Amino acid sequence: MNWENRFSERTRLMQQSTVREFLKHATRQDIISFAGGLPDPELLPVKETREAVDRALTSNGARALQYGVTEGVGELRELIAARFPHIGVTPESVLITTGSQQALDLVGRVLLNEGDKVAVQNPTYLAALSGWRTYGAAFLPGESRLPLAPEPKAVPNLIYCIPNFINPTGESLDENERNLVLDYSLNHSIPLLEDDPYGDLRYDNTPKPRSMIEMAGDPEGPVIHIGTFSKVLAPGFRVGWIVAARELIAKLALAKQTLDLHTSTFAQYVVVELLKGGIIDNSLPPLQASYCQKRDLLLEALNNQFITGATMWTRPHGGFFVLLSLEADLDGTLVARAALENGVLVVPGADFHVRGGSNSLRLSFSNAPRLQIADGVARLHEAIMSAHI
Amino acid sequence: MNWENRFSERTRLMQQSTVREFLKHATRQDIISFAGGLPDPELLPVKETREAVDRALTSNGARALQYGVTEGVGELRELIAARFPHIGVTPESVLITTGSQQALDLVGRVLLNEGDKVAVQNPTYLAALSGWRTYGAAFLPGESRLPLAPEPKAVPNLIYCIPNFINPTGESLDENERNLVLDYSLNHSIPLLEDDPYGDLRYDNTPKPRSMIEMAGDPEGPVIHIGTFSKVLAPGFRVGWIVAARELIAKLALAKQTLDLHTSTFAQYVVVELLKGGIIDNSLPPLQASYCQKRDLLLEALNNQFITGATMWTRPHGGFFVLLSLEADLDGTLVARAALENGVLVVPGADFHVRGGSNSLRLSFSNAPRLQIADGVARLHEAIMSAHI
Repeated sequence: MNWENRFSERTRLMQQSTVREFLKHATRQDIISFAGGLPDPELLPVKETREAVDRALTSNGARALQYGVTEGVGELRELIAARFPHIGVTPESVLITTGSQQALDLVGRVLLNEGDKVAVQNPTYLAALSGWRTYGAAFLPGESRLPLAPEPKAVPNLIYCIPNFINPTGESLDENERNLVLDYSLNHSIPLLEDDPYGDLRYDNTPKPRSMIEMAGDPEGPVIHIGTFSKVLAPGFRVGWIVAARELIAKLALAKQTLDLHTSTFAQYVVVELLKGGIIDNSLPPLQASYCQKRDLLLEALNNQFITGATMWTRPHGGFFVLLSLEADLDGTLVARAALENGVLVVPGADFHVRGGSNSLRLSFSNAPRLQIADGVARLHEAIMSAHI
Repeated sequence: MNWENRFSERTRLMQQSTVREFLKHATRQDIISFAGGLPDPELLPVKETREAVDRALTSNGARALQYGVTEGVGELRELIAARFPHIGVTPESVLITTGSQQALDLVGRVLLNEGDKVAVQNPTYLAALSGWRTYGAAFLPGESRLPLAPEPKAVPNLIYCIPNFINPTGESLDENERNLVLDYSLNHSIPLLEDDPYGDLRYDNTPKPRSMIEMAGDPEGPVIHIGTFSKVLAPGFRVGWIVAARELIAKLALAKQTLDLHTSTFAQYVVVELLKGGIIDNSLPPLQASYCQKRDLLLEALNNQFITGATMWTRPHGGFFVLLSLEADLDGTLVARAALENGVLVVPGADFHVRGGSNSLRLSFSNAPRLQIADGVARLHEAIMSAHI
């Protein structure tokens, strides 16, 4: 059977990311990993989940194991609507998705035609780019943290923006920048996809800004807000959501129906019980404290050990990531391979970029054990030095 | 915001199925439902799930709540490979999917170009048709239970076949028919998608035939086998699988990565524990006995009560469904609306058909309480009589 000539055109647009070559080593015991954006396993709510399952099965019985409606479990849609108290979000404006990755796919599927242009931050979340590429999308890289060039020449069909602690740099948009992006969307009636997986994971007492859908003041406008429980609760549930205009939600649900019928009812009811038990309020302060400490350890190690090889790195106030810029003649992929040889796993930054970025590395501080962080940075520095020669 | 002119061409191909209009009434207390293909809630393993969660979290701890690899949890892939002991299926030939609905979507996504032809049984599973339509597929309806016409005029790009107790008729292919379909696939090197959600739910001591991938003798051939735990365990987990050639599995996994990263790790580990606890062997005999009894009640009521209005109905030896053919001048959708008015929910058969079928109704016996079945049939007969006048 010759499969190669059976694959669709779409399949030819699916690129195996270089990042994946590295991520498959992430579970090896002999290396220190700054790779995947994984929560710290010590912070995952194992005990609380056991109790939540018990409550979910007691309250709902077979319903928690049965088919459900595509839009999601009613109680969960209500709890998510309640996260936006000031702008009149009702459960009808909420679609539950199988992680926010599915939300990204659904938005692409429903809004993007071949050749359509998506304005993106540069760098931005890798798997949004790779997913939308299969729909034939082209990307317009913005300037710095913004998904828009100062004077955009081409009109985008969609604006994609991660306003808080973007993967891979950890940087955020300030109030002015948010207004600028939102105004462009509102003035040109261009859908603005606000992706906010990290907004609650903020350190250094930085206040939480309003989301752009809240700034717009109306869920019936052009802002599509997506979120997830993967970073603040647990990724293993695969529960995310979309808040958007009801007309769009209806189409997204129609698309989702043929994708997986609905998100796991069981996982949704367990998440409902975790939320009702107050887990976010209870666990967020320790999560923030723990990740903040790891970020400090990483930045401290970079400050102490990096004499040469890197020109700069980001100093995020939240999220999971630091982006390290290597000296211009160093290639991130080659350095990452050398680092892996030397027992530390990092991810090359190139695939997160629409333009440039080949001399960058993404370091995630969320998943590495505290006591290994300094050693990991030392191994990385050694690898860069050897690549440099 | 005018969303209508923002939707992609693909979105315009997404049709709101008439079936959905009916399914949304399925949870109403005042009606008897023969609608969705839902397992009997009394047979869902609530107690066993509670115990399995306990074991899963004890054995795996945080791993059950963490991100996982796209291909699926290793132990689950092994357990599924072991279901095909005679043809050398290894875990590398298995992809875990978010229900078998996602398996259908993935196969379409990876194999179908616009204008490609899929040979299908007629009638066949509605949501396969609606999903692949968004990839621009056209359908070649076969004859009777076969997805192939006796002398196919157009060459299909994919053959789609539900060999056992097909939704919506409950009929199966016999040994000769399976051989005919398989030979066509092998001789022309055309991928054959074997979808088998109901194969284990067999009544009347009918022996279980080999699957077509087993008949082919080799997982590296053109047969793509998909299965699900939704009917024999619980749909709320959304855990299904694909067994196929490793080269194809690799592409399907690449596609799945941008869809939802991976299927819920939590659900997968719980299913692993349920399987290791022997749930399928233990629960299959009572499931079969219970559904068989319900099928008998439905067929008996149809035999006793249907004097006129219907010309025939199927008498399945497994699965969840009976297809009822109405007299030629009756429209299934109008009758289903009249039936709903009269307190019984059935689904019009038209959307399951590529050709014909507008005068048919699908009746599911799996989810209705035993004591309501005869009454439901009486209400349906009344509605048909009134539509007939």
